[in-house]
Amino acid sequence: MDPLSFYTVSIDYDRRLYRQDIAGSVAHARMLSAQGIIEPDEAAGIIEGLRQIQGEIEGGTFLWRPELEDIHMNIEHRLHEIIGDTAGKLHTARSRNDQIALDVRMYAKEVADQAIEGVDDIRSALLSLAEAHSSTVMPGYTHLQRAQPVLFAHHVLAYFEMLTRDRHRLREAWREADVMPLGSGALAGLPYPLDREAVRMDLGFSRVTPNSMDAVSDRDFLVTFHSAAMLCMIHLSRLAEELVIWSSEEFGFVRLADEFTTGSSIMPQKRNPDFAEIARGKTGRALGNLVGLLTTLKGLPLTYNRDLQEDKEGFFDTVDTLLATLAVFAGMLSTMQVDADRMRDAAQGGNMLATDVADYLVAKGVPFRRAHGIVAELTTYASERSRAIHELSLDEYRRFSDHFEEDVLLITVEASIAARDVLGGTSYEQVRGAIEKAKSRMRSDGVSG
Amino acid sequence: MDPLSFYTVSIDYDRRLYRQDIAGSVAHARMLSAQGIIEPDEAAGIIEGLRQIQGEIEGGTFLWRPELEDIHMNIEHRLHEIIGDTAGKLHTARSRNDQIALDVRMYAKEVADQAIEGVDDIRSALLSLAEAHSSTVMPGYTHLQRAQPVLFAHHVLAYFEMLTRDRHRLREAWREADVMPLGSGALAGLPYPLDREAVRMDLGFSRVTPNSMDAVSDRDFLVTFHSAAMLCMIHLSRLAEELVIWSSEEFGFVRLADEFTTGSSIMPQKRNPDFAEIARGKTGRALGNLVGLLTTLKGLPLTYNRDLQEDKEGFFDTVDTLLATLAVFAGMLSTMQVDADRMRDAAQGGNMLATDVADYLVAKGVPFRRAHGIVAELTTYASERSRAIHELSLDEYRRFSDHFEEDVLLITVEASIAARDVLGGTSYEQVRGAIEKAKSRMRSDGVSG
Amino acid sequence: MDPLSFYTVSIDYDRRLYRQDIAGSVAHARMLSAQGIIEPDEAAGIIEGLRQIQGEIEGGTFLWRPELEDIHMNIEHRLHEIIGDTAGKLHTARSRNDQIALDVRMYAKEVADQAIEGVDDIRSALLSLAEAHSSTVMPGYTHLQRAQPVLFAHHVLAYFEMLTRDRHRLREAWREADVMPLGSGALAGLPYPLDREAVRMDLGFSRVTPNSMDAVSDRDFLVTFHSAAMLCMIHLSRLAEELVIWSSEEFGFVRLADEFTTGSSIMPQKRNPDFAEIARGKTGRALGNLVGLLTTLKGLPLTYNRDLQEDKEGFFDTVDTLLATLAVFAGMLSTMQVDADRMRDAAQGGNMLATDVADYLVAKGVPFRRAHGIVAELTTYASERSRAIHELSLDEYRRFSDHFEEDVLLITVEASIAARDVLGGTSYEQVRGAIEKAKSRMRSDGVSG
Amino acid sequence: MDPLSFYTVSIDYDRRLYRQDIAGSVAHARMLSAQGIIEPDEAAGIIEGLRQIQGEIEGGTFLWRPELEDIHMNIEHRLHEIIGDTAGKLHTARSRNDQIALDVRMYAKEVADQAIEGVDDIRSALLSLAEAHSSTVMPGYTHLQRAQPVLFAHHVLAYFEMLTRDRHRLREAWREADVMPLGSGALAGLPYPLDREAVRMDLGFSRVTPNSMDAVSDRDFLVTFHSAAMLCMIHLSRLAEELVIWSSEEFGFVRLADEFTTGSSIMPQKRNPDFAEIARGKTGRALGNLVGLLTTLKGLPLTYNRDLQEDKEGFFDTVDTLLATLAVFAGMLSTMQVDADRMRDAAQGGNMLATDVADYLVAKGVPFRRAHGIVAELTTYASERSRAIHELSLDEYRRFSDHFEEDVLLITVEASIAARDVLGGTSYEQVRGAIEKAKSRMRSDGVSG
Repeated sequence: MDPLSFYTVSIDYDRRLYRQDIAGSVAHARMLSAQGIIEPDEAAGIIEGLRQIQGEIEGGTFLWRPELEDIHMNIEHRLHEIIGDTAGKLHTARSRNDQIALDVRMYAKEVADQAIEGVDDIRSALLSLAEAHSSTVMPGYTHLQRAQPVLFAHHVLAYFEMLTRDRHRLREAWREADVMPLGSGALAGLPYPLDREAVRMDLGFSRVTPNSMDAVSDRDFLVTFHSAAMLCMIHLSRLAEELVIWSSEEFGFVRLADEFTTGSSIMPQKRNPDFAEIARGKTGRALGNLVGLLTTLKGLPLTYNRDLQEDKEGFFDTVDTLLATLAVFAGMLSTMQVDADRMRDAAQGGNMLATDVADYLVAKGVPFRRAHGIVAELTTYASERSRAIHELSLDEYRRFSDHFEEDVLLITVEASIAARDVLGGTSYEQVRGAIEKAKSRMRSDGVSG
Repeated sequence: MDPLSFYTVSIDYDRRLYRQDIAGSVAHARMLSAQGIIEPDEAAGIIEGLRQIQGEIEGGTFLWRPELEDIHMNIEHRLHEIIGDTAGKLHTARSRNDQIALDVRMYAKEVADQAIEGVDDIRSALLSLAEAHSSTVMPGYTHLQRAQPVLFAHHVLAYFEMLTRDRHRLREAWREADVMPLGSGALAGLPYPLDREAVRMDLGFSRVTPNSMDAVSDRDFLVTFHSAAMLCMIHLSRLAEELVIWSSEEFGFVRLADEFTTGSSIMPQKRNPDFAEIARGKTGRALGNLVGLLTTLKGLPLTYNRDLQEDKEGFFDTVDTLLATLAVFAGMLSTMQVDADRMRDAAQGGNMLATDVADYLVAKGVPFRRAHGIVAELTTYASERSRAIHELSLDEYRRFSDHFEEDVLLITVEASIAARDVLGGTSYEQVRGAIEKAKSRMRSDGVSG
Repeated sequence: MDPLSFYTVSIDYDRRLYRQDIAGSVAHARMLSAQGIIEPDEAAGIIEGLRQIQGEIEGGTFLWRPELEDIHMNIEHRLHEIIGDTAGKLHTARSRNDQIALDVRMYAKEVADQAIEGVDDIRSALLSLAEAHSSTVMPGYTHLQRAQPVLFAHHVLAYFEMLTRDRHRLREAWREADVMPLGSGALAGLPYPLDREAVRMDLGFSRVTPNSMDAVSDRDFLVTFHSAAMLCMIHLSRLAEELVIWSSEEFGFVRLADEFTTGSSIMPQKRNPDFAEIARGKTGRALGNLVGLLTTLKGLPLTYNRDLQEDKEGFFDTVDTLLATLAVFAGMLSTMQVDADRMRDAAQGGNMLATDVADYLVAKGVPFRRAHGIVAELTTYASERSRAIHELSLDEYRRFSDHFEEDVLLITVEASIAARDVLGGTSYEQVRGAIEKAKSRMRSDGVSG
Repeated sequence: MDPLSFYTVSIDYDRRLYRQDIAGSVAHARMLSAQGIIEPDEAAGIIEGLRQIQGEIEGGTFLWRPELEDIHMNIEHRLHEIIGDTAGKLHTARSRNDQIALDVRMYAKEVADQAIEGVDDIRSALLSLAEAHSSTVMPGYTHLQRAQPVLFAHHVLAYFEMLTRDRHRLREAWREADVMPLGSGALAGLPYPLDREAVRMDLGFSRVTPNSMDAVSDRDFLVTFHSAAMLCMIHLSRLAEELVIWSSEEFGFVRLADEFTTGSSIMPQKRNPDFAEIARGKTGRALGNLVGLLTTLKGLPLTYNRDLQEDKEGFFDTVDTLLATLAVFAGMLSTMQVDADRMRDAAQGGNMLATDVADYLVAKGVPFRRAHGIVAELTTYASERSRAIHELSLDEYRRFSDHFEEDVLLITVEASIAARDVLGGTSYEQVRGAIEKAKSRMRSDGVSG
């Protein structure tokens, strides 16, 4: 493409706004006619022409012309071909600046809704996993070191919380987009008796923009969408990292379904978690798009500047990235197999129960600091014998403190988990309760389970 | 500083959390005692010791020890000096991981509130400017080209809208921070009969974190604060750009107060808008801090990883940057002088009324396209004579179309503005209404004005 | 597109590597044959098949198949159709990992060369501007305030310096890409008697990669390209900003050619500098792509991870952006008109000569500080009378100091410029010398002028 | 701090430039005197005064005054206190704009040199590791899946390559900084007979800046430093990720020294790799600082704008981050223990030798595709029996193909490694050669080993 066209031709990417552009034009024509600014039959002709164009686009017969540069001009030009000079009346009391602001806002609302659906699919998948593994134990990690045993369901529900916050932020992004800018003109409003409220209601917006200069230069709602998408991608990148680690031969906690891995026929044990990796990689792209938009906005004087043309490609790219990634994770999570045995084995290893033993001593009246000293000696003793602390005999325990009694042998991974019975903790009961709450939240979010 | 200390010593920056750390410890001790986990007199001793420490810090007599690395250890160590071994009991049923999460959340709520106040100060200043200039005309610009005359008040109110959105986002950031994490332990919850609800109420939180693993690794609320701060800085960078441009000799629209400019004694006309420039420059820093945090979070497995230590410096830097910038703008806007004459002169220049003349012809029944053709000829004619279109005589007008009548001479900058009497438009009436609405919004936001 | 394909199908963007992919395969086949790993006639068949495929692609008859996902598979599959099972031998001793590394490196070298050409076109345009305006005076700005008079040529040559540095960095990017990775296999090298040096020479590389694990996971050369492109875009964004400001009615320093502006038929004075604005806006995109790549690379363990698939789209986008932007600026600069009169008028305004008058006094023996005091009084005096300091009479001068003599009247904008006759300064002589040096540098860079 | 001071006071961070500022002033005074612009005894007095100030600063007796805002004013003010009015002569023919540019360039050269030393320390540590483990085998990973056996030394040398590239880039950053800007004045050069070449030589620069307007607004050399630092941090973040993974109980490949881990007395097996994690986290900060600078530079018109004040804090932060991180890694790598047994055990697991067996069949004349089919059956057979392919007997091999002979049993991990005897491959011989080449490169870089 020649450099000048590279700069000005946007039809390759903005054609995806065709439905919004047409719906906005229809509402505008209807209002112009209701206000007596154009004749009813002119409006009818315009609307009919636009409907025909929508049919052509959806039917694949529309001829896109790069030389007409953008979606607006392509549609305008075709409308003129179909209905003749009346087509020009559609542009009464409207500017390219408020028209594109309208199109993008309508589109943003639509994709925010789709993203929320995608998030809900993952939440459902997470919830199913949690239910299926409400008693599967695994090591809880800090610093990628085994720290304390937890339920796999508890681990999974941590992501449920993240995604629930993402849902809220996407909803906020929707809310920010939900303001109707048409009627702002190029920048100053328009010298016509417009009924902006009618257009707003026709198009299903909640509010109209209250300042025309702001309306044509505001891209905040896009930043908010980018930010929400970004944070969601960050969450999924964390889950992706875990899936990659868990899929390694060394961990072996999960087995991703065939369609989410690649391998080699001659190395069947190799199950490359490509989809998790790509998702992790795409986090960079989402961040890049956010940075790109913010950098473009920085230091722009009012009102419309052509720099703003750059708002769309990164936005569309983030939309596509987010929606695909949400679908990939919903699929990946609902098809993966969990190796509960390997998880449990890992949870038995190490000395993850040491803190429980110290807590035991504290409960028996040993001061905190002293209790820790005793347990430190115990774990050293056990390590030297390649055993875990909970594999010691009572005799061995008692060599280190008289406070140990028979019941110290009841300290097991399961008991350790059961003991963390505090709101938000990993105990069986708490996790069961958390699952119930999560289900109820899903229902109140309108997601059938 | 030696490299290892550079990595681990945070007391230089995290000491600003001392009030939050102490308040959290007081609430924790109180709850431990109420639940019978420690003795009432132990709790009393701990709380008294903590109050003394707060007094020492605020009185400047507290000895900060870098070798103790962070705020928690500095306070713990001093508490032990004051009350002896009982100090150790404070750490019952608490981990560094949930403690720091609590501190930062409390701090985030506080600074979000401060930022909202700062935003409100700017909104007040903008509103005052708008009221003082509710009939000052100026050119409205697109592409930094004069496009249509607008009221300066209308221009100013565009920023009022942006800042009002910022306020909402900062409020969202507050809301996200408003979840109480204590009781999550290192990652799995704690094996003690804690009353997390009591701590929540004691510390003024609305909710408790529902999943311990999420609670210790979640930094979403910081991202949301960064995003809100970032967008606010972007808005102010746009205003800063305008102030810089308006301060140039060529524009000469505003004169910033002496304390917000620097100059040279021998070049008195030079009024460098340093503060506006620095504000514009600091947008980069705010974006950098946001990018830094997101990049740090990307791909981290659950739960706590030491990478998260990096969450604080950038956050504090953005907090300081935002709060100072808000104060700078509130001061700069409320002290700057507007040169209404130069603005009006600029608004008279060019052919900004050409669209109004075209609209005039359309109103007289000339088809849109034809009307534009006539006006194009008119402006060319006027330009060749170095005049603006509205400086032509009726005779001259009529050489181009019979539709021109006496009333075409009524097309003035003021008439053009008055004609844009649509919701959100720049007409005198609309702007007056917008000012009233803005005032009422301020009142409902609890800002006295 | 379904989400899984969205993740794995890259043929839409990686098909642009077809020449590199084929050239690499040809060299590989030739070497395999020379080393006796495949038969000469097998190699000949493979090469002939690949040439045919190249013909088909360039002739537009090649059928791209999304279901084959990427450029490699599309070519492989077609090769198999053409020459049958021998096609499989091409994959002997080669992995997808070293193959794609090779393709991208070859491509990076090619586009770095193109970018250097584009930079040179701008440098030529800048040099022509400088020569044409080697005595056009204008205000030199700091803080967008008029500070000291300079030659427009001097201003323009500042950009020549920036672009010359960009050229060096693009050359460095080329140099980094110029290392041949084939023979690294999937990660560990290959168990075949390969002649990597032969492939290197065949493909015109300077070195071969010295470590196979590094070779398949290294994307540094892309980061270096991104960084070089980014900085070049930053420079052009600064020039863009100046063009936008200079195009405003208030400045009026330049008039961009019609093909680089948009306007409206009825507002002929409005010459929106859209191309400069878009260039400025695209800086965000270039930064976003850089950030995206770096974020993707962060924290990846060795060796190949599928995240790396994400390296290409952002790279291609930055390549396209940079090359188009370079061409746009070369065109914009070589067609714009400079309004030397308005520049000179602006240079006369203000009190830009005040420092020269102070320097005059210092030369007459007045201490620096005292001289400044006198001139401060002078400029205040002049300002109050709406005159510039150099418009005062000798009598007026002498009211403030006896040291003023007839020759103070020789202090003019031109004299001020002439006085800055230090290496790198704006004096006529220095600028003439700088133009000559710039021309000679262009010649030594192999650019004919 | 009050908001205005927060904006303008930089002494807290720019005081680190005191040596550069003083050295620059000394060279300037010397030149002014040599050129007859000031008297020799004035220069002597100035220089003596500056030396005294340097002594006070280094002796800790200098009184820093925030109200004087920056390093220049603090030194100027003190100089005036010491030597009286002559101090003012130092400012002859110098502006704050070229002075700060000089200081930062001198500083940048110094820290680039330090960073190169830090990089060399890591390269030495890597080389020692490689030598100590020139026959330690481990699994080579792709997708964090075991792919092919490699030598640990080979893996380590991959990082040697990365760091060697970093060294080159840091050297480029040094080279870009190595241009002397003094004499550029505020923006236009100076009306004095300066000898810029003398200052250049005095201060050890290679070139002088050729354009004064560029000289005071150019921050490219900082961007280049940031980019070089960033890429180095990226490389170290990858190594950090590997150290974290290798330190997990599941992998258990390395044991970091006590001073580079934290743990708990009662959980001795927990060796949290905090330093590796912090290093990984700090990658975000380095990226943030780079983004911050670029965003600040975007769209700034010439010449100096106060936004540029923002160039320093992020730069200093990245300098400190990089230097500390380099030291941390040099220490971490030279003290960590490698568990060669666990590495070897891991290398035996899985079916990493499957490709070798396929290559064996190809060598026996079996077509590539058929060979792969046979090996796929073999690995499935072995997997079903929980064995690795190389643990099968010859009989079992021959059930799948007659081409297997006694020598198939010679396919071992060691043989697989030895076979990859291609330039850059992992064979014992190649790695030995690579170590020798690396040593020789170190010597030619002037690093004694």
